[in-house]
Amino acid sequence: MQLEAIYHRPKNNFAYAYNEKTLHIQLRVKKNDVEKVRLLYGDPYHWNKDGWIFSYKDMTFSGNDGLFDYWFVEVSPEFRRMRYGFELTNDDESIIYTEKGFFTEAPCDDVAYYFCFPFLHQADIFRAPEWVKDTVWYQIFPERFANGNPSINPKNTLPWGSTEPLRDNFFGGDFEGIIQHIDHLVDLGVTGIYFTPIFKAFSNHKYDTIDYMEIDPQFGDKKTFKRLVDICHQHGIRVMLDAVFNHSGFYFGPFQDVLENQEKSKYKDWFHLREFPVKTTPVPNYDTFAFTEQMPKLNTENEEVKKYLLDVAKYWIEEFDIDGWRLDVANEVDHAFWREFRKTVKSIKPDAYILGEIWHDSMPWLQGDQFDAVMNYPFTQGALDFFAKGKISAEEFKNVITNVLHSYPKNVNEVAFNLLGSHDTPRILTLADGNKDRIKLLLLFQLSFIGTPCIYYGDEIGMTGGQDPGCRKCMIWDQEKQDQELFTFVKHLIQLRKQYPVFCNDGEFRFLEADRNKNYLVYQKQSKDETLLFMLNNSDKEVEIPFVNGIRTALDLWNNCQVEIEDEMDLPPFGFAIWKIK
Amino acid sequence: MQLEAIYHRPKNNFAYAYNEKTLHIQLRVKKNDVEKVRLLYGDPYHWNKDGWIFSYKDMTFSGNDGLFDYWFVEVSPEFRRMRYGFELTNDDESIIYTEKGFFTEAPCDDVAYYFCFPFLHQADIFRAPEWVKDTVWYQIFPERFANGNPSINPKNTLPWGSTEPLRDNFFGGDFEGIIQHIDHLVDLGVTGIYFTPIFKAFSNHKYDTIDYMEIDPQFGDKKTFKRLVDICHQHGIRVMLDAVFNHSGFYFGPFQDVLENQEKSKYKDWFHLREFPVKTTPVPNYDTFAFTEQMPKLNTENEEVKKYLLDVAKYWIEEFDIDGWRLDVANEVDHAFWREFRKTVKSIKPDAYILGEIWHDSMPWLQGDQFDAVMNYPFTQGALDFFAKGKISAEEFKNVITNVLHSYPKNVNEVAFNLLGSHDTPRILTLADGNKDRIKLLLLFQLSFIGTPCIYYGDEIGMTGGQDPGCRKCMIWDQEKQDQELFTFVKHLIQLRKQYPVFCNDGEFRFLEADRNKNYLVYQKQSKDETLLFMLNNSDKEVEIPFVNGIRTALDLWNNCQVEIEDEMDLPPFGFAIWKIK
Repeated sequence: MQLEAIYHRPKNNFAYAYNEKTLHIQLRVKKNDVEKVRLLYGDPYHWNKDGWIFSYKDMTFSGNDGLFDYWFVEVSPEFRRMRYGFELTNDDESIIYTEKGFFTEAPCDDVAYYFCFPFLHQADIFRAPEWVKDTVWYQIFPERFANGNPSINPKNTLPWGSTEPLRDNFFGGDFEGIIQHIDHLVDLGVTGIYFTPIFKAFSNHKYDTIDYMEIDPQFGDKKTFKRLVDICHQHGIRVMLDAVFNHSGFYFGPFQDVLENQEKSKYKDWFHLREFPVKTTPVPNYDTFAFTEQMPKLNTENEEVKKYLLDVAKYWIEEFDIDGWRLDVANEVDHAFWREFRKTVKSIKPDAYILGEIWHDSMPWLQGDQFDAVMNYPFTQGALDFFAKGKISAEEFKNVITNVLHSYPKNVNEVAFNLLGSHDTPRILTLADGNKDRIKLLLLFQLSFIGTPCIYYGDEIGMTGGQDPGCRKCMIWDQEKQDQELFTFVKHLIQLRKQYPVFCNDGEFRFLEADRNKNYLVYQKQSKDETLLFMLNNSDKEVEIPFVNGIRTALDLWNNCQVEIEDEMDLPPFGFAIWKIK
Repeated sequence: MQLEAIYHRPKNNFAYAYNEKTLHIQLRVKKNDVEKVRLLYGDPYHWNKDGWIFSYKDMTFSGNDGLFDYWFVEVSPEFRRMRYGFELTNDDESIIYTEKGFFTEAPCDDVAYYFCFPFLHQADIFRAPEWVKDTVWYQIFPERFANGNPSINPKNTLPWGSTEPLRDNFFGGDFEGIIQHIDHLVDLGVTGIYFTPIFKAFSNHKYDTIDYMEIDPQFGDKKTFKRLVDICHQHGIRVMLDAVFNHSGFYFGPFQDVLENQEKSKYKDWFHLREFPVKTTPVPNYDTFAFTEQMPKLNTENEEVKKYLLDVAKYWIEEFDIDGWRLDVANEVDHAFWREFRKTVKSIKPDAYILGEIWHDSMPWLQGDQFDAVMNYPFTQGALDFFAKGKISAEEFKNVITNVLHSYPKNVNEVAFNLLGSHDTPRILTLADGNKDRIKLLLLFQLSFIGTPCIYYGDEIGMTGGQDPGCRKCMIWDQEKQDQELFTFVKHLIQLRKQYPVFCNDGEFRFLEADRNKNYLVYQKQSKDETLLFMLNNSDKEVEIPFVNGIRTALDLWNNCQVEIEDEMDLPPFGFAIWKIK
């Protein structure tokens, strides 16, 4: 057995409290190296004259990626505390793996050998709001969604969609426009809107805040925003705003005060200033987002800044009843700040959602004390590479997704924010070179996966656009120019997600087939009550999918009809099937 | 190369902020599998037309255990943020290791492949009080240290040392006794006292608190305690108290109220009661420490309990100026509580020390938001097995210690609470079957290692005793019965530790020799300015230690004389040498 490959360490994705009674334990081993794994576990204080008393429980193979197999077990220790190890068996040997290394027999003279989950406290459980896992998100970039009130257009506003989006042009999108088009969202079936920033700012993207307590006048006033939130709520749609707390805009009052009064500014500790006088050229001598002098980094370790930003977080919840905050560049703000942020937000709205923008492995932010979710870009990357770009094989895709799923606890995966694109990335149809069949499979995968999907405005009607600003075109409202067929397709998927809990987050996800050479994919979602089978042919050739599990009939969910199952299933190029089996 | 053995994940011992400018990066690989490792790193936002701009920095081999080699590097990214990967080379190949897996060449089209340390914030740095790393602790079990005021003896107090300690007998140790013997501690050279509980309680060990706001009357009153703290401070000795917050005692007022008033008790949410009526027999139907009905578990998730315990934490600091809290059964209390505890304590005394009792891998408590240190029992176990019991070889000992050191960040190791025994374990001389030579090597190792050593009262004068209550004998004050030679030995070690910063925590620790068959050990502590060489012969045979490094003279620190270095060094059975070399 390859001992060096075996890995476990508690209090992250490898061992965590799933709920107030249940621990989840995961083990990583070298691929195809181990045949059977049992958890060896007991109460740390449970002894008799022969030593420590422990039991065994079989673990289940839960997937593999390029290098590793993963094993999983759920266990409910009676007194909510547990010492444990693993018994690993293959043809050659059987060994015991503990915190103190490997043994041929399970030691029972001391519990100190074993891994420890000392106590399962409610306060430490990762717990996102209940509603999140059933939500289908829709991302709106307000400047480009709809212009409903030309009287508040910013200077030099261009006619809607009259030209390509540029870094600095304006088309006058506003709240009134969103309100006028709320039916589009209701019709599609989305149940949450993520708005990129709406506070007073300089640019068209509004990530350079001037005043966190004011709505940008080009979008409307507070009364209109309140009306927008109310209308969303009336339609069962939650509202999430974008909190840009890593940095302010250049024209943020306190930063302007610093530029004006330098050392004497009472705001000089609000930023990370490296020297005086503060200068923007040739390079800024203060910390910024990236190297953008227009975005001075806020000192979130400063008590006044903390208070100011936490007041902002409270204000928009208390006054406007928003349902969540998406946190921009969340990984570059200190953990200490986010812990206070969570406490503040949850104290006034316990079921508010906190979503961090983090593009990399995010376990340190998802321990229950900071975020409810992160933007799941590793999922995005894998899904785009396989479905949109055809860059990786089905097997490689399976490896990426299995790796992502095993990098986080199950309760984290259930609320992962699974996006396919955003205002920061090229649009999916553009990435797929206009191949709509590929986009359909991509959306099918997104909408049947674990987590909460987010649709970037316009993707549902086939909009195109490259890297930003290209991906920030004006929403197309001319129905003739919308891809109605795609819209109906997405709408159908959302309906199925709502209709079948197992389609959504009530089912265990598992890959059944993902071959290196044939680019089709078979996966299932399984709950206690039902099993869904998904077959996706991500190739331009017809494929034959063999069946060996003896199932004879199924309900074809997509076409809503019974099907008789042959020994194999033919899928046309880029075809798919969704079957509900008993 | 054994890819499955290669491991890195940020924000723990593998990647952390050492100080406000410095990141430490660690990599684990299969033992003897890799010849060279370089860190590949750059600012995430630093690009030119060819792609991402990165540099390389050589990593250093920092030790190995049974299965793995560890590599280390220190790096100070100009803008405090870093994306990074590793280049690993051996005779066969050179590969790049990233968050997204392995590559033959370093990808530079996207930083998303790479591990990320997003930003180095002061607020997130693990930072123990400055004074801790120079402290030599001494643990006092107050009932057994000295009886200085017989007028406050509890009922049935036995004459001092007249009989073996039992679970329920009393000898009347008190504060006055400690004050009278403060010179013993000053003479020994200790600079911190850890007191096991002193609050009003039922038992002789006082871990079953009756009132957290009162001194146990058998120890004295608050005035006497204040005098004790003042005298300690006058002698440069810090004072740490034991906070038993996981559970109360059976006679704690709120628990008694629960027993009396059951469902109607206003304290019913202060505990984890499983049903009413609350009963202690046949088994308690409430959560307890272990299965001890005398110790009902406190509900630290309850707001009133939190407030009460945090008030306790504040009270003894504010009123008595104590310097630290040792937290009993710390791992079984929720992380959320400890985070609030830290905030509360540090807000009133920023340099107070917070030490958790955790016997297992403790990384989740040592991220900077909870504890300053834990009781380093994995160190204890290894040191006892090798030196006291002779159960493991020098190589196995080296493996254990290397593993412990690589399980935590360097700033954590510098303040680890390295004990050899406590009121919970047999005494070292008893474990060594009375072999004082072994105990001397054990103490030499403890006092020359990274971290802060703690001496259990009486070990310095050769006291014996088995598992508790045997290890809780009355301190021997009859000088004839004290092992004066051992006392002088320990005192000498403490003096050296104080005299040479590199002996203490100012030096890098490294094993130079630790052979499987010969039970001698050579290790060094190295700072910029000086290097100490420690040679310990943990065997009953003379050993020859060969030298190959060309050093010709050294200062023998123990005997304070110059020595000429031959090609080899003879160490008598259980002999040792400490050399300062240039």
